[in-house]
Amino acid sequence: MSEREVLQKINSPEGKEDRIIGKHVFGNLYDIDAERLNDKEFLEKLVLEAVDIAHMKLVEIKAWSFGGKKGGVSVIALVEESHIALHTWNEYNYATLDVYTCGEDSDPQSAFAHIVNALNPKRYQMFYADRSSQ
Amino acid sequence: MSEREVLQKINSPEGKEDRIIGKHVFGNLYDIDAERLNDKEFLEKLVLEAVDIAHMKLVEIKAWSFGGKKGGVSVIALVEESHIALHTWNEYNYATLDVYTCGEDSDPQSAFAHIVNALNPKRYQMFYADRSSQ
Repeated sequence: MSEREVLQKINSPEGKEDRIIGKHVFGNLYDIDAERLNDKEFLEKLVLEAVDIAHMKLVEIKAWSFGGKKGGVSVIALVEESHIALHTWNEYNYATLDVYTCGEDSDPQSAFAHIVNALNPKRYQMFYADRSSQ
Repeated sequence: MSEREVLQKINSPEGKEDRIIGKHVFGNLYDIDAERLNDKEFLEKLVLEAVDIAHMKLVEIKAWSFGGKKGGVSVIALVEESHIALHTWNEYNYATLDVYTCGEDSDPQSAFAHIVNALNPKRYQMFYADRSSQ
């Protein structure tokens, strides 16, 4: 194979590795201002912004409020073909965040950072899991 | 504090550690029979069974089908107050599974095992993340 053919193979879509690329950034966010964690509209908007920042295509988003001491808000966005999930517990000033995206060009780290910056936890943990098919 | 008082503190609900307990079992499932991965009703039923097995209370479940080479099925169940998410790619014989549950009595491992047994991948990886508030 000539050098030109090799370069073509690398750069053409057919030449790209044929697999599902899945990137999952997730973490726990501690000591967050309780008011933000109970504001369903604010949290839903935040996840919508994160979908764009991650370069993901939104299929559907939904948010739910839960009452009681262990209540809070859940927002789940189905993106093609993975998800972003934010769960909050305002009485515990606590939230968990999963940004799972598909495709080489997707950017879950930036989406995760966007939500963390907006919620402004005093401390947080962040983890990464490879969800690719090979 | 007397021995009786200590035992009361441990056994009473107030005496239990006051925190959100989150358990997240997730993994990648390889080399699955493609037919099962394209059967939306079968996969939705499987996730519903997993909700029961995990001792979780279902809030809402939804399933979507995607066409194309990188298509497949996504099933997401919102449970109180966490989620189960199954994404499949039939052309790649591949699926990813997240079983994230809340509460001391929840059992995400058994729910994960139930779905793995039904999908029967030739191999799979399983990971655990603590999503608790302390």
